[in-house]
Amino acid sequence: MKPFHPTPKTLMGPGPSDVPARILEAMARPTVGHLDPQFIALMDEIKSLLRFAFQTENALTFPVSAPGSAGMETCFVNLIEPGDTVVVCVNGVFGGRMVENVTRAGATAVVISDDWGKPVDLQKVEDTLKSHPEAKILAFVHAETSTGVLSDAKALCALAREHDCLSIVDAVTSLGGVPVKVDEWGVDAIYSGTQKCLSVPPGLSPISFGPRAIASIEARVTPVQSWFLDLSLVMNYWQGEGGRSYHHTAPINAMYALHEGLLMLHEEGLEAAFARHQTQHEALRDGLEDLGFSFLVEPEYRLPQLNTVHIPERVTDEAAIRKNLLEKHDLEIGAGLGALAGKVWRIGLMGASACPANVEKCLGALKDELG
Amino acid sequence: MKPFHPTPKTLMGPGPSDVPARILEAMARPTVGHLDPQFIALMDEIKSLLRFAFQTENALTFPVSAPGSAGMETCFVNLIEPGDTVVVCVNGVFGGRMVENVTRAGATAVVISDDWGKPVDLQKVEDTLKSHPEAKILAFVHAETSTGVLSDAKALCALAREHDCLSIVDAVTSLGGVPVKVDEWGVDAIYSGTQKCLSVPPGLSPISFGPRAIASIEARVTPVQSWFLDLSLVMNYWQGEGGRSYHHTAPINAMYALHEGLLMLHEEGLEAAFARHQTQHEALRDGLEDLGFSFLVEPEYRLPQLNTVHIPERVTDEAAIRKNLLEKHDLEIGAGLGALAGKVWRIGLMGASACPANVEKCLGALKDELG
Repeated sequence: MKPFHPTPKTLMGPGPSDVPARILEAMARPTVGHLDPQFIALMDEIKSLLRFAFQTENALTFPVSAPGSAGMETCFVNLIEPGDTVVVCVNGVFGGRMVENVTRAGATAVVISDDWGKPVDLQKVEDTLKSHPEAKILAFVHAETSTGVLSDAKALCALAREHDCLSIVDAVTSLGGVPVKVDEWGVDAIYSGTQKCLSVPPGLSPISFGPRAIASIEARVTPVQSWFLDLSLVMNYWQGEGGRSYHHTAPINAMYALHEGLLMLHEEGLEAAFARHQTQHEALRDGLEDLGFSFLVEPEYRLPQLNTVHIPERVTDEAAIRKNLLEKHDLEIGAGLGALAGKVWRIGLMGASACPANVEKCLGALKDELG
Repeated sequence: MKPFHPTPKTLMGPGPSDVPARILEAMARPTVGHLDPQFIALMDEIKSLLRFAFQTENALTFPVSAPGSAGMETCFVNLIEPGDTVVVCVNGVFGGRMVENVTRAGATAVVISDDWGKPVDLQKVEDTLKSHPEAKILAFVHAETSTGVLSDAKALCALAREHDCLSIVDAVTSLGGVPVKVDEWGVDAIYSGTQKCLSVPPGLSPISFGPRAIASIEARVTPVQSWFLDLSLVMNYWQGEGGRSYHHTAPINAMYALHEGLLMLHEEGLEAAFARHQTQHEALRDGLEDLGFSFLVEPEYRLPQLNTVHIPERVTDEAAIRKNLLEKHDLEIGAGLGALAGKVWRIGLMGASACPANVEKCLGALKDELG
């Protein structure tokens, strides 16, 4: 065994996305202590930059020390008590994962199913909330990474409030790629990941909790089932007054990378980042359609940062094509997940991957492989 | 806000320890996909190197994608079902954290308390196991990071087997610094961290589960309460036959760093690494005793990699001294935790920090500050 020197790949799958050299360099800076005042100051800047990214004033905004799945679990285990009812919208893999989180936390999941490739149906949500007045939480995925669909988070959060429910929003693939307006939409709890439109290596999950969610945590009568993810404890590390208290050791160098990635987003500006994702999507879409591809998702709720296309009928071995793309062209695109396995490809334009060079490379490589 | 360029510090606290440039460089290599064959091959090497470090043939040996506290929780939530009884040995902060894990998983904790600074008392454990035949698990901390005490893991695991209990061992601070012999000792489940004697940035928790522990997981009648930490799911990613299936996105660059740190340990050899920790401990001990320090922990169960010393009575503001060490000497040492706060300092010699230059620097700086 010897040191690992990976062949660099262009990352156009569903995440991780291309990580700029500037972020990798930041990650390699000397490790300091997790209670070093330098690091505490960095944590404050990260919180501030995350508030910018999430468009919120929420004090409780910070990265959970683990990937997006742990951010999801943080939201559910802190807001659920055994016996609660949670309405979960499922239109892809990650809605299904939410149901797992709900039942494992001892709550009842009321599932609203929509076809994979369609957004969450607002009318069904309204009807379900009306017929389940006991529901405490409405949970949904803003941008489904398994399908490339954007759901109407603003309308869904409004429905949650009308029916006195908290909202839990999965913004893993949306943050930094399309608008995510936590305060304007009245989101109560939200989580994301670093390896999508922030172009930071995976390993952290930014979250934000609003005042209604915090009140719900403070009113708990049972302990949170996870010690590691218990926000009443983690909070003392991230925002303790008069000194931070030790909870766990934060992934220090991963925080350097997240800080740098958020700085880059701040320098570019949110609107410019969203526009860049849209422009590159349009260029990729035009090229893919010229090659004969059709999209799984209708334009009005299609994610610019995740392009899910039907695999052409003439392709008999889709895995072989993806293997060739990866090995001969050093280009990663994503396979279909779950019910869509073998039927679609997912082509990501996330964060730094949303650039003209990647669009051109992808179209050229596909043309080469498909003939 | 601008890019973060930390002033480098010499890390002689209870972790993180100094991270060699070679490991930081590895961490900054290009991010590839988490299902890229290159990365899958790296995962296999990491598992193999972890088996070397843990001295085990256990197939289920891999790093959990989160810090040591999540590794602890992985052990408890996978092995506990509601209503179980777990005997927990508490002789410091981390034993106390184990109790939290046990009760939050719906089990009853039978606590055996020993004074902070003393090892786990074998006789008390034997008596307790005899009087609690319903106990399913014996859990203890091999190397207590809050006190610097080494407990007799071999004898404790033997007691667990005699009484038909599974053992859960916290090896966060021991792995790589003192012998950890998973197979020889009959450890059933063990977790560690990367930022102690492996000198890798924090963020991952190596674990290993033996056949008895796996049989216990396979016999479960209730689901594991954490989706993120459910080994029956995570295993499919780390050791799926005929292709890995997606569970969560691994912290890819953190894995590069862990691989490099484990390679360095392999190159040095375990015995050489243990001897180096011991030699540097003896040099530091002699120097500290010359300066008038006394140790909290008796020599026969003192950890070489974590030196806990009483703060001299003439020191009226211990926090000010630590602040001066950090700011004027760029040297981090650790404060006391819990009951020992303000009474002791914890001076780490972990991994790359266990070197003559650090010993000399620490003694010089302490002499300078204490006069």
